[in-house]
Amino acid sequence: MDPRIREHANIISMHSTSMKKGDNVVIDADPIADDLVTSLCEICAEIGANPLVTRGRTGGRFLRSYLNNSNGEFQIASHELALFEQMDVYIVIRGGGNDSEMADVDQNKINEYGLVRKPIRDIRLSKRWCLTQFPAPQSAQRANMSTEEYENFVWDAIIKDWGVQKNHQQKLVQLLEGGDRIRLVSGDATDITMNIGGMVPINDYGNHNLPGGEVFTAPIIESVEGEVTFDIPLNYKGHTIEQAYLKFEEGVVTDHNADRNGEILGEILSADRGAKSVGELGIGMNRGIDRFTNNILFDEKMGDTIHIAVGMAYGDTVGRGMKKNESSVHVDMITDMSKDSFIELDGELIQIDGCFVFEEGFKQK
Amino acid sequence: MDPRIREHANIISMHSTSMKKGDNVVIDADPIADDLVTSLCEICAEIGANPLVTRGRTGGRFLRSYLNNSNGEFQIASHELALFEQMDVYIVIRGGGNDSEMADVDQNKINEYGLVRKPIRDIRLSKRWCLTQFPAPQSAQRANMSTEEYENFVWDAIIKDWGVQKNHQQKLVQLLEGGDRIRLVSGDATDITMNIGGMVPINDYGNHNLPGGEVFTAPIIESVEGEVTFDIPLNYKGHTIEQAYLKFEEGVVTDHNADRNGEILGEILSADRGAKSVGELGIGMNRGIDRFTNNILFDEKMGDTIHIAVGMAYGDTVGRGMKKNESSVHVDMITDMSKDSFIELDGELIQIDGCFVFEEGFKQK
Repeated sequence: MDPRIREHANIISMHSTSMKKGDNVVIDADPIADDLVTSLCEICAEIGANPLVTRGRTGGRFLRSYLNNSNGEFQIASHELALFEQMDVYIVIRGGGNDSEMADVDQNKINEYGLVRKPIRDIRLSKRWCLTQFPAPQSAQRANMSTEEYENFVWDAIIKDWGVQKNHQQKLVQLLEGGDRIRLVSGDATDITMNIGGMVPINDYGNHNLPGGEVFTAPIIESVEGEVTFDIPLNYKGHTIEQAYLKFEEGVVTDHNADRNGEILGEILSADRGAKSVGELGIGMNRGIDRFTNNILFDEKMGDTIHIAVGMAYGDTVGRGMKKNESSVHVDMITDMSKDSFIELDGELIQIDGCFVFEEGFKQK
Repeated sequence: MDPRIREHANIISMHSTSMKKGDNVVIDADPIADDLVTSLCEICAEIGANPLVTRGRTGGRFLRSYLNNSNGEFQIASHELALFEQMDVYIVIRGGGNDSEMADVDQNKINEYGLVRKPIRDIRLSKRWCLTQFPAPQSAQRANMSTEEYENFVWDAIIKDWGVQKNHQQKLVQLLEGGDRIRLVSGDATDITMNIGGMVPINDYGNHNLPGGEVFTAPIIESVEGEVTFDIPLNYKGHTIEQAYLKFEEGVVTDHNADRNGEILGEILSADRGAKSVGELGIGMNRGIDRFTNNILFDEKMGDTIHIAVGMAYGDTVGRGMKKNESSVHVDMITDMSKDSFIELDGELIQIDGCFVFEEGFKQK
């Protein structure tokens, strides 16, 4: 077995989920990740935790047949609910299967199913949990990489000293905590400002998402002004949207287009009232992720990038007494900041071409 | 997908487990059986039942790493217990994986783990449940058959009119219910008698086991007298025992040997006091199973065979007020009755060379 698999399992259990004696663990994985699951079971035994392996979120074919053959009336599965109520740690391993398995399922059914199962999801998210990736050939293919090259890419992004990464990112958190008006500029196509005063910047150092590697927060909804072009392609339900452009006035999208699949972008923005406003501003800081791989778990943490999500804001990023953007969608879109770009906070430069003010090599323009 | 897979799934859900609207279902399967699991999820949707797919009993590699890395102190996994408490239907699909996965695990650990988990097993067995087989290449290999030939074999044994089979077997049940002293004779090597008066003959027509196809009961422990040679090979924890011979006096084995692995047979009989007595007499009646395939789920139901198990008797075969043989082992051993053989009940012939008295072609010797 590749020794990096056990290292990956160590990070999931020790760092991301702080697994301990007596923990009831659920591991949800496609069979392609059997080596990683086997390593996790080893660790559970060493610690004295109780693993149970399921194929729920990762069992795409099963869910597709279930949804396509149902009449659309769903009920809470009380045995699943009971399982997650008694669970302490939830580990989901992506990779394998067919990402397009839901391509011929009625979107209304998917939405209704998601709605009915919200209590199950809520219980899961109230426990210690981690979403990670196994370097499966299918995922490598989507990244246009060979499987071996993709293995190196995935494990380089995941197997690192997360304590060092946390400390590095904490410097940005401290800057943002003390600031309010943030301006992001890249080339001629992006110049957008928003206020984050009173909101909470979160340091994502590989607990809920592995790899982690971003600092993210929510803006004051109405404060978002300006234009942004997302030069990293966006994959939305099998459609690739290229060079998405959004113009904001008083926090609402007033113009938009794209070089490819602009009508899909339009559909996203029309989902509901909150879909036209910003729910998240994220700053990618994982330099182990050095390229776009068509997988948001990695792409949004890419070093020297920022991402803006239209739609729902995460509750923990919204400060007490502040307004939370609500929406049924949350779609992250990414802009490269490595060239001809800068970020200002309250008029002071905090990043130039991807290099932060607290890093060596930072120079005033 | 092979259309027999959906037929297999239909029998599991409609016949074996009587699945109905609102049922909470757990399907435990190796990934090799994904097509069958997908079909079961289709049916769950059609009925309005809630499927959850796990890899517990079928996740051999996971269990091996868990056991080999534990210190031998186990605890009840309360999340698993909660899952099974809320479950209505339990489906286990054998096939795939490596049957020898436990070959390098300390038997004491396996026993201790089984003991601690007894409450989980008991809850599972108190629900509607079905153990069945997917025709995996690994299982075909163990049967010395090509995968396609083995597919035909498995589905011929499973996809049949179980109502007709039940009625056919019920004729034997009625005979046995009215009888007491049963004598089984095959060639020169087998002539054994036992009393079954007061015990309960069970009609296995494909509910808990799929394929089913046997009538089985327990004898009065002390009544077993005579000699039996099991001419179908017996696979015990990876060891093949050939031509096992047992001599019974007053219900206890007083002599034994085998052409191959006789010492393993000796170990089985020495497990405990009950291991030297008979716990089950079964009569195989599934003529869709026409050959030995090194898989007890099929072998013991083979048409024109009988099997005798040393060790534990099943509770539901022991009549009220009768003594139940207790043991930590239950090992089935099979004798071919298709040639030069007969069965007598209270001195009357009820089977000659595999043909029952209630079948066409039955002729007095």
